Amino acid sequence: MPVKTVAIMSPGEMGHAVGRGLLAGGLSVITCLEGRSDLTRNLAERAGIVDTPALGEMLAEADLVLCIGPPAKAAEMASTVARAMSDSGNAPPYADCNAVSPATARRIGDDIARAGADFIDGGIIGPPPGKGAPPRFYVSGERASLMSELDGKGIRVRPIGDEIGRASGLKMCFASMTKGTLALQTAVFTVAEALGLTGELRDELLEGREALYKQIESGARRLPSVSARYIGEMEEIAATYEAAGVTPKFHQGALDIYRLLASTPLAKETSETIDPNRTLEEAAKVFARHLPMK
Amino acid sequence: MPVKTVAIMSPGEMGHAVGRGLLAGGLSVITCLEGRSDLTRNLAERAGIVDTPALGEMLAEADLVLCIGPPAKAAEMASTVARAMSDSGNAPPYADCNAVSPATARRIGDDIARAGADFIDGGIIGPPPGKGAPPRFYVSGERASLMSELDGKGIRVRPIGDEIGRASGLKMCFASMTKGTLALQTAVFTVAEALGLTGELRDELLEGREALYKQIESGARRLPSVSARYIGEMEEIAATYEAAGVTPKFHQGALDIYRLLASTPLAKETSETIDPNRTLEEAAKVFARHLPMK
Repeated sequence: MPVKTVAIMSPGEMGHAVGRGLLAGGLSVITCLEGRSDLTRNLAERAGIVDTPALGEMLAEADLVLCIGPPAKAAEMASTVARAMSDSGNAPPYADCNAVSPATARRIGDDIARAGADFIDGGIIGPPPGKGAPPRFYVSGERASLMSELDGKGIRVRPIGDEIGRASGLKMCFASMTKGTLALQTAVFTVAEALGLTGELRDELLEGREALYKQIESGARRLPSVSARYIGEMEEIAATYEAAGVTPKFHQGALDIYRLLASTPLAKETSETIDPNRTLEEAAKVFARHLPMK
Repeated sequence: MPVKTVAIMSPGEMGHAVGRGLLAGGLSVITCLEGRSDLTRNLAERAGIVDTPALGEMLAEADLVLCIGPPAKAAEMASTVARAMSDSGNAPPYADCNAVSPATARRIGDDIARAGADFIDGGIIGPPPGKGAPPRFYVSGERASLMSELDGKGIRVRPIGDEIGRASGLKMCFASMTKGTLALQTAVFTVAEALGLTGELRDELLEGREALYKQIESGARRLPSVSARYIGEMEEIAATYEAAGVTPKFHQGALDIYRLLASTPLAKETSETIDPNRTLEEAAKVFARHLPMK
């Protein structure tokens, strides 16, 4: 059966942009906004995603369900959908595209399978559609090829095997590098500030590593606004590392840093309200002031 | 009193190259190789550094002592020198240029001060003289300006204040970023290998982040050969972070990774014997095979 209607659970920053791409590609895109935030509601509306009044109706219409939301909510959303599948008797294939560990993906998959639906493991790498190169949807599982019907519709779809957990694992590896490095760089400047050495470290980096300095500065400007969202992802990454037999401490440290950033007033900013002129030194001052152990 | 003769304690990879630069700058450079490794002995000889038969004689001739060695040995070397100072009655100014925490630098400084010598805190950033831009010797302490006499002689000397611990702190911040990032990148590919995803992660990175991939590959090739040396430095960095009130977990994780690398047969390589063709995938296979928790 070809995919004509795609349901997107929790169409936030990434999800609504994916929906817009699928719509432009000729698919019908629906969601169910029951209990969702105003932000999500506005984003879905602006993207032209059709709201259905209840999950049962969404499932009756959908040929495929994509769950694209915060990792900490992934298991809960899946079990809500699984219940609605059992209650309504409509159980279309379900792809979990959240940043979760392979173990969490398997747990979610079991939940969905018990409700009688096929499960696809997914991991998204890259920014939302419309911002440069299209994001890559890595997918795995025996029904992963179903997702290939979405390839080229604002996203790239890449099946990487039959095993549930592979797509999630790849996403974990990638994010562990990018978001782990950003957290480490933030930690470095927080320590420098605590030691009264921010200016000296800045001068040393500006001599020959200016691009790196600018990148750290832009990260420090943006990270507080996303820090709360990254906390759950760091927990999933640490669990992935531990299960693989590799030290989980880097991302336990990253978790500490994102918690620190989330505790500052800067965490209330959004991509629209971030001060584009805030220097790394000013950001580091705020971070150091909120150190819990001080 | 102007500096005419500089003693270098433990003239290894960095120290012997510094000695060569100071010699080229017109200074006399001496050391005491009693109990030093053949490698250090050869390096010192090749650089033209004059060996004195005992520490007491070295101290009698030196106008300034630089200690440039592995961080785990810094305190022990300083107390050996302090004893020789007390015994011989010769106590020239002593600069600890090792990668140690501000707290370790203060402890070493107290030891040296009790022996009657001036103490300078130092931190070296950059590769040894002769490999591109000269290394920066950041120095702090009330007598730090004495080191300025060495500026331009193969090295750059930068006083950054009167307080012992500032120069060490800056070195810790800088190294926490560079060596912490390298360890994190190594961890990422070790996890990818453990999950059977190295090829997929490589392909994702080669698409748009090729320079980063090449940098990680070259790091993974070189790191086992230096891993044993980095272990002590990670301990000093973790202690620096903790004392500053910032999570020490990143560098406890880096410590775990450098221990893992040091446990592989690749750790026996030297800069001369490293296989220049070893791919990141081959290196990751070796690392994953030696995971302690597997």
